[in-house]
Amino acid sequence: MKLTGVIPPVCTPLTPSFDVDGPSLTRLVDHLMDGGVDGLFVLGSSSEAAYLPDGHRRAVLDTVVGHVAGQVPVLAGVIDMTTLRVLDHVRAAVVAGVDGIVATAPFYARTHPAEIALHFRTIAEVAELPVYAYDLPVSVHTKLGRDLLLELASSGVLAGVKDSSGDDGGLRSLILSRPSSFSVLTGSEVTVDCALWMGADGVVPGLGNVDPHGYARLFAAARAGDWAAAKDEQERLINLFELVTVGLPRMGGGSSALGAFKAALHLRGVIDHPTTAVPQIPLNEEETRRVGKHLADAGLL
Amino acid sequence: MKLTGVIPPVCTPLTPSFDVDGPSLTRLVDHLMDGGVDGLFVLGSSSEAAYLPDGHRRAVLDTVVGHVAGQVPVLAGVIDMTTLRVLDHVRAAVVAGVDGIVATAPFYARTHPAEIALHFRTIAEVAELPVYAYDLPVSVHTKLGRDLLLELASSGVLAGVKDSSGDDGGLRSLILSRPSSFSVLTGSEVTVDCALWMGADGVVPGLGNVDPHGYARLFAAARAGDWAAAKDEQERLINLFELVTVGLPRMGGGSSALGAFKAALHLRGVIDHPTTAVPQIPLNEEETRRVGKHLADAGLL
Amino acid sequence: MKLTGVIPPVCTPLTPSFDVDGPSLTRLVDHLMDGGVDGLFVLGSSSEAAYLPDGHRRAVLDTVVGHVAGQVPVLAGVIDMTTLRVLDHVRAAVVAGVDGIVATAPFYARTHPAEIALHFRTIAEVAELPVYAYDLPVSVHTKLGRDLLLELASSGVLAGVKDSSGDDGGLRSLILSRPSSFSVLTGSEVTVDCALWMGADGVVPGLGNVDPHGYARLFAAARAGDWAAAKDEQERLINLFELVTVGLPRMGGGSSALGAFKAALHLRGVIDHPTTAVPQIPLNEEETRRVGKHLADAGLL
Amino acid sequence: MKLTGVIPPVCTPLTPSFDVDGPSLTRLVDHLMDGGVDGLFVLGSSSEAAYLPDGHRRAVLDTVVGHVAGQVPVLAGVIDMTTLRVLDHVRAAVVAGVDGIVATAPFYARTHPAEIALHFRTIAEVAELPVYAYDLPVSVHTKLGRDLLLELASSGVLAGVKDSSGDDGGLRSLILSRPSSFSVLTGSEVTVDCALWMGADGVVPGLGNVDPHGYARLFAAARAGDWAAAKDEQERLINLFELVTVGLPRMGGGSSALGAFKAALHLRGVIDHPTTAVPQIPLNEEETRRVGKHLADAGLL
Repeated sequence: MKLTGVIPPVCTPLTPSFDVDGPSLTRLVDHLMDGGVDGLFVLGSSSEAAYLPDGHRRAVLDTVVGHVAGQVPVLAGVIDMTTLRVLDHVRAAVVAGVDGIVATAPFYARTHPAEIALHFRTIAEVAELPVYAYDLPVSVHTKLGRDLLLELASSGVLAGVKDSSGDDGGLRSLILSRPSSFSVLTGSEVTVDCALWMGADGVVPGLGNVDPHGYARLFAAARAGDWAAAKDEQERLINLFELVTVGLPRMGGGSSALGAFKAALHLRGVIDHPTTAVPQIPLNEEETRRVGKHLADAGLL
Repeated sequence: MKLTGVIPPVCTPLTPSFDVDGPSLTRLVDHLMDGGVDGLFVLGSSSEAAYLPDGHRRAVLDTVVGHVAGQVPVLAGVIDMTTLRVLDHVRAAVVAGVDGIVATAPFYARTHPAEIALHFRTIAEVAELPVYAYDLPVSVHTKLGRDLLLELASSGVLAGVKDSSGDDGGLRSLILSRPSSFSVLTGSEVTVDCALWMGADGVVPGLGNVDPHGYARLFAAARAGDWAAAKDEQERLINLFELVTVGLPRMGGGSSALGAFKAALHLRGVIDHPTTAVPQIPLNEEETRRVGKHLADAGLL
Repeated sequence: MKLTGVIPPVCTPLTPSFDVDGPSLTRLVDHLMDGGVDGLFVLGSSSEAAYLPDGHRRAVLDTVVGHVAGQVPVLAGVIDMTTLRVLDHVRAAVVAGVDGIVATAPFYARTHPAEIALHFRTIAEVAELPVYAYDLPVSVHTKLGRDLLLELASSGVLAGVKDSSGDDGGLRSLILSRPSSFSVLTGSEVTVDCALWMGADGVVPGLGNVDPHGYARLFAAARAGDWAAAKDEQERLINLFELVTVGLPRMGGGSSALGAFKAALHLRGVIDHPTTAVPQIPLNEEETRRVGKHLADAGLL
Repeated sequence: MKLTGVIPPVCTPLTPSFDVDGPSLTRLVDHLMDGGVDGLFVLGSSSEAAYLPDGHRRAVLDTVVGHVAGQVPVLAGVIDMTTLRVLDHVRAAVVAGVDGIVATAPFYARTHPAEIALHFRTIAEVAELPVYAYDLPVSVHTKLGRDLLLELASSGVLAGVKDSSGDDGGLRSLILSRPSSFSVLTGSEVTVDCALWMGADGVVPGLGNVDPHGYARLFAAARAGDWAAAKDEQERLINLFELVTVGLPRMGGGSSALGAFKAALHLRGVIDHPTTAVPQIPLNEEETRRVGKHLADAGLL
């Protein structure tokens, strides 16, 4: 079955000592499912996967898969540098019972299209689950080319792609040339109505943690062909998305965005602590106050 | 004690099924120590650390630390994306009994100088061992600035740096302004005499796996002030270093270089298999033959 | 008056000896105006401005401004490295009688937001014409930030922007926060319906040289609210746009795209020679044949 | 005759209204020749060539060629985007009577090795003078590969290279494999003794404007085999070179470095105004005071 709809990358609530906060995580899952999402993507970039040790990752997998109990599909990121390391994460995810795997191109090591293809082929052989490519050049410094994706789609290696490249022209070209069973999901928060208009199947928005209802309404409007309503919802969410800048330039863009998502979830009463994993810089009081202002403006507080 | 001399990043021999080949690894360690090296750096980039699962990494640590038995210092790379993941590797390395830790800036995640500083501070607190910064922008896409390194040096966080940035001007500026106890090691294979001339303390050459005697002679000549001999040795090694290109452009630069190092070690009888970890593309017969030609030209076969 | 609609960057026909081919240029202008365009942008990147000496540029300005004779606005690119050099082009364009100026951020020289702002301010003071920023990071290696553009818009320096950054999220954020008089034009060939949907005012498509009627129909459909028709037209143009790849990887992306545009104009009988300026590599017969195939598939031959 | 020695890129003194300050320029030329330089490179990056209109460039060529009157070779930069534009500068330089041409790879336009080769070939055919490649990836975003340079050297297209890439490993590999008549000049200010040690023929240091005597002494010591003296001189110049940072981060690196060179020449009484071309940000009083401090520390004030 082709993956469609709103599949947020689930934030990973932490305790002040940087452990996984299980009760907050299950509340977050409830918040998302109440919001009407169609699936959950754990251990993605917005989940701070790059910051979580393997033990934390297993705790997240077990907590979410157990709590969701099959109500919606759960995809798991297997973010690591190269194949053998990724395969360890794949096996852990399979044991935990996830429904699909999301993997990037190799990173840190210098790579090559032939090596990227072998990487995905090897993952798919071991996973025996649908595998989605995660196209995230800002993190892995390689753009997955359309022709490579099409080759991996037609040979059954990949079930779809999460496109966080920001290249909407490339996204569209892929949409028009893919096999119909290949799922194309945009990782954009701010051009979702356009991506759906182009023919994308779904959206994986980090901001969907903060306002899942908004993205669910957007998707439903688009599916119903009510593009004006989709646009209104999208523009409201674009304004809300400004919260990702509250920490700049005192900290990096990751610290600011993930800190703001968690501060918003904390202010909305979903999670117990706004803690982000070290070495991210925490938001200060003033920055947190500005997150609250963005929530209020969006009608979320 | 300040780290000096030739400290090669030790290749990780693998079996054809991608397990750590322990007997080959101990022979490689003997080959390096017979070659006159002053220390060993395991789990660096030339060790395929980015390709090795945690179990492989532990096997390498145990094998090398056990076999070396204190004859020379053993440094361990703790290559991973961010702090908490790196700390797991630090703890494993400390348990294994290494003498120092080598860590990069955070990668994959978007970072910031304040976050990089906190990253190294946290690592140093947990390691309670000398920590060396690994400046490798080609992999982590951040250059460690001189002023950041000096601040971390003077506050006792860092014991030194392995500079693989290729920026010899920046290297020299750091050498001239560092505290005298701070060890500066170049990761270059081809400008070692120059780096030592500038005042660098040592060298961490991937090619040192293939020809440790050469780098030991180069270092000894430089220490003795016989710069003409150092230069002759360096130029011989530069010619040998051409072997890293044998696989281009059929594969990536990593596959070609690491494949050539291992093919050379195999041809020299040091390791049993030239296998590199998936998804690297293996050298073919013709490429391997060209590696042999380079070895013969350098008097190593 | 705010600039809107289809404003193609006009190709510069050349003779085989690399002179400006005036008769072909006027036929091209007629072809574009017959196609229903709303303005013309000469001396942009698709015009090979980077390849044209100042004498060529003046010939283009004089030919086009003279031939258009005020029927539609003519904008002139003033592509050069920094301010004083750009000002020479501005003066030539003003003398020729253009209606607006299109300028990039400084390039080649290392720059800074404060320097970019001063650059545009100085240009606007001298031009005494509407100035449009040309956001083209692939060429100038700087992205014009939203806040910088808004500051230059609100202070009257800039009349609009041509966004060729490919960052549709950033484009949208700019659209939602700009003063209403500030014209936002997309340089994309393939997401034009989306850009118009987001609120963009117009489009500057290189492919519009080949098929101006297509882009004019697309724009008219969008203005009429017939988004389904706009999408059909866009998807036809996306297929046509594949012609830009015919020369790859034997040559660079610029040679391939500009060579294909000119080959198409030659095959369609608009210009006399498909010549592109040295050192671009000319398309060969087979590549030209494939351009013809794309034209036929799009119903243009 | 092969080009060797110290060939500084000559700063271009400007009046406060941004005209070429001829009397200051001839004093600067005298200052450099008194300093013992072996040639002059006008219209390079340190000459603000990217900032100078064609009229300014001609004034510089005429002033310097006329004043030098054949005492040392004068090379001229022909910095522009692509071939036909560069050829206009080549012709102007030939008319002015220079002894050699310095050209970069194409920039702004997307390029390709085959196009770069054709670019240099075309320039060499028109120039009928020795042509030197200017390898400056920080400005043109392409690194000239060793094999391309060797091919252009052996076919007589290029007489040498000015390497400002900062890649001293690549520089050395080129030195060891070039034809003996091919001149290799480093653009580094801070690793000159090393470059000469590796076999480079000369140096083109921007800082040589401020202290030509220092670079002349460095070169003479290296030629005499007194490497310890060369190193002492180099280390003194490294400390002086810190003046390029006085304006950071209030302005870009170009504004800061070129502003500091000119402030130093003004403080030393060589030029009448420290003016740099718009849109560079001028140094303020405090920044200028710090330039003076660096001069005093280096014994130059």
